Amino acid sequence: MTPQTIENFGSPLYGQLKQAAGEAWPAYVEHAFVRGLGDGSLPNASFLHYLKQDYVFLIHFSRAWALAVAKSDRVEEMRQMAVTVNALLNDEMPLHVRTCAAIGISETDLAQTLEAPQTLAYTRYVTDAGLRGDLLDLLTALMPCVLGYGDIGASLAPKLVTGEEHPYRDWIETYSGDDYQSVCAGAATLFEDVAARLIGPDPQSSPRWPDLVRTFKTATELERDFWGMGLAAA
Amino acid sequence: MTPQTIENFGSPLYGQLKQAAGEAWPAYVEHAFVRGLGDGSLPNASFLHYLKQDYVFLIHFSRAWALAVAKSDRVEEMRQMAVTVNALLNDEMPLHVRTCAAIGISETDLAQTLEAPQTLAYTRYVTDAGLRGDLLDLLTALMPCVLGYGDIGASLAPKLVTGEEHPYRDWIETYSGDDYQSVCAGAATLFEDVAARLIGPDPQSSPRWPDLVRTFKTATELERDFWGMGLAAA
Amino acid sequence: MTPQTIENFGSPLYGQLKQAAGEAWPAYVEHAFVRGLGDGSLPNASFLHYLKQDYVFLIHFSRAWALAVAKSDRVEEMRQMAVTVNALLNDEMPLHVRTCAAIGISETDLAQTLEAPQTLAYTRYVTDAGLRGDLLDLLTALMPCVLGYGDIGASLAPKLVTGEEHPYRDWIETYSGDDYQSVCAGAATLFEDVAARLIGPDPQSSPRWPDLVRTFKTATELERDFWGMGLAAA
Amino acid sequence: MTPQTIENFGSPLYGQLKQAAGEAWPAYVEHAFVRGLGDGSLPNASFLHYLKQDYVFLIHFSRAWALAVAKSDRVEEMRQMAVTVNALLNDEMPLHVRTCAAIGISETDLAQTLEAPQTLAYTRYVTDAGLRGDLLDLLTALMPCVLGYGDIGASLAPKLVTGEEHPYRDWIETYSGDDYQSVCAGAATLFEDVAARLIGPDPQSSPRWPDLVRTFKTATELERDFWGMGLAAA
Repeated sequence: MTPQTIENFGSPLYGQLKQAAGEAWPAYVEHAFVRGLGDGSLPNASFLHYLKQDYVFLIHFSRAWALAVAKSDRVEEMRQMAVTVNALLNDEMPLHVRTCAAIGISETDLAQTLEAPQTLAYTRYVTDAGLRGDLLDLLTALMPCVLGYGDIGASLAPKLVTGEEHPYRDWIETYSGDDYQSVCAGAATLFEDVAARLIGPDPQSSPRWPDLVRTFKTATELERDFWGMGLAAA
Repeated sequence: MTPQTIENFGSPLYGQLKQAAGEAWPAYVEHAFVRGLGDGSLPNASFLHYLKQDYVFLIHFSRAWALAVAKSDRVEEMRQMAVTVNALLNDEMPLHVRTCAAIGISETDLAQTLEAPQTLAYTRYVTDAGLRGDLLDLLTALMPCVLGYGDIGASLAPKLVTGEEHPYRDWIETYSGDDYQSVCAGAATLFEDVAARLIGPDPQSSPRWPDLVRTFKTATELERDFWGMGLAAA
Repeated sequence: MTPQTIENFGSPLYGQLKQAAGEAWPAYVEHAFVRGLGDGSLPNASFLHYLKQDYVFLIHFSRAWALAVAKSDRVEEMRQMAVTVNALLNDEMPLHVRTCAAIGISETDLAQTLEAPQTLAYTRYVTDAGLRGDLLDLLTALMPCVLGYGDIGASLAPKLVTGEEHPYRDWIETYSGDDYQSVCAGAATLFEDVAARLIGPDPQSSPRWPDLVRTFKTATELERDFWGMGLAAA
Repeated sequence: MTPQTIENFGSPLYGQLKQAAGEAWPAYVEHAFVRGLGDGSLPNASFLHYLKQDYVFLIHFSRAWALAVAKSDRVEEMRQMAVTVNALLNDEMPLHVRTCAAIGISETDLAQTLEAPQTLAYTRYVTDAGLRGDLLDLLTALMPCVLGYGDIGASLAPKLVTGEEHPYRDWIETYSGDDYQSVCAGAATLFEDVAARLIGPDPQSSPRWPDLVRTFKTATELERDFWGMGLAAA
């Protein structure tokens, strides 16, 4: 695994939004759930609950990325986002199913998971951002998840010691690994490109800046609540 | 009736878009159909065909304005647009039905009108602009109709001579009259306000300018084709 | 005020969905918040918190009804829903502002209300139901609010004793009063009509029944959580 | 190549809709443009014009399939449709670009193609069907294109004689070939499955039948007009 080496995956806008989100950002990426993942103290019940909700989350997250394709008419953007939708549904979700199976959660269990209010709140906030706004509004609501997981993965990578067992090694390796870090770099480039064509080179001087911050911050808070839901399940 | 006295209903953006649309704009507002309305030479069959298609048009036009409400979260904007949706469905369409009844087209005829491809093309282009983009994209697709009719009405008003019969007096008086001209002034203000909060005070320097021009110009061409459809029915 | 006299406002479908929602329904309409409204024991702080969130709720609720207009092409349906959108934005919200002003919450306070996760969850669930499904899916997500408030109002009306003060008299009179009960009757008729044209006369035998139940039940649970949010603010 | 052997690609619903579309169906699949493709008499200018518009068409067609993913919450359906979106954007469009390059239309030319009204009308009708209705409405608007091209390809396959040159051999082999015919079989199964879960096993007895027919027929007529556009370019 290779922890993130390029700051903010190469997206200054992502960095600016994290800063503008203030306390909400560390409350998400340094959440007790995340710390528990890192030092291995997270109760297994919390992790299992999280995994089940993440399955439902991925369904609506895929819908949101698909909506992003429908909200573009630039072939290059559409291509990249179509790859994302396809990877989510045909690689990520089967991987998720296998991971869950390995620790005793069957696909039937997953499919019967009752969606928690926190899962519902975040996912529908994202799709509604796409209904209400344009592609940039939608991507802004998606980034705390996409890039935030890359940040979290990279921050937890040093917790893995070669040869030592770690209960959440797989999770940390997934999100700190080259594959996911590359996904982040690609998403960050897309985010910059879409922002450039919709609000220009200086996002903070755009009249949309306060709204973009609000969207990013709200999505961040909803991600934080998603961790909280997992933690409360222990 | 009071022809328009404030240039472009007070919307510099509307004026800039008309200019950027180039030849497409006069091809719409000075179309042979419009000239025929003005000098009374438009064949009655063309006008009747237009009226029937306009009924179908108004259904989808109302849908588009309703979508605009769903694409805002600013209470003042939403209020104004909700008034528009309500006025279209509960005032304009009943008026349309009465106008048609007066010249022998029953409401049953109207309801059974087969939608012409030109009607479909314009209306679905507008709703898709709302699906794909944000509120400004949607309003930009709507303005050639809303404000263009105000311009056309005002330009034809001098054709009406007091005491002289004119076969299209009602139509011209409707769109040149105070009520419709006020609707235009309100829509123009909304358009400016939404543009200000989404692209700032200088639209032409926005990176979205070429896309907005394309949307406005395409909608203008589709309006032109709508006239063409009416004319071809004679 | 006239408590509801026609069962389920004349909508058998609404009755069937309430039954299918099982325990979720009484958990909403007989919530501790509702009981507190009825016997006057609800802490004022809870009520004020509820009112502020309800202001934000109404914005997105109006968006959802506007989306419903955009999801129809039946003129009669559209007319009725356009009246609803307009009434929500231009009557209900100003009334809400005046009510709040009378008890010391200024319009500025309302406009600056931070949206609670429970408000966000319900409203975005509704708009997403409209994005994902058809008009019936959207209306099914709206009905627990629209008709549920009518049921709650009617159930609390007997708590008001003529000549006796009641801290929540206005609220109870609003939702048990003729005006709101008529709104419910109209919405119930619309719901039946839309269901008839989309799933036919026997909803429970439709293949969509399980999905409609899930939507109705989830929306009901999110309404229950909305009360819970108010209660927790005391 | 293997002409279609299973009737209607295994979708009785597709067969019923074709029949219900009446004259509109043969007017599309036996259009003069199609006959010209088959006997090689289609003017090259028509074919080139068609190819350029088809490039623009594919952009919006991909958006429509992406919207379909966003309108489902069934993982299996979403997976299949995500594969379609990805194949359209990352296989079909590059193939299209190569085909065009081989006959002298550069990618720059393609990207600068002005969208014809007929292209616009059909594609936006489809996306609007998705905005207005549910997944079945959207798929019904897509099927005349997806499956119709499979039917047309299969019907033209016998026109190819081994060893003889044919100016449109590539086109006919593409749409009559195993790959595309398999795509059709998959889409037909999806269509049946979605119909089964939304309107049940007997579509013609569903109250939605007249609307589905209208959508299918309108989409068919817009496809017919697309051929007409190509023909008129000669």
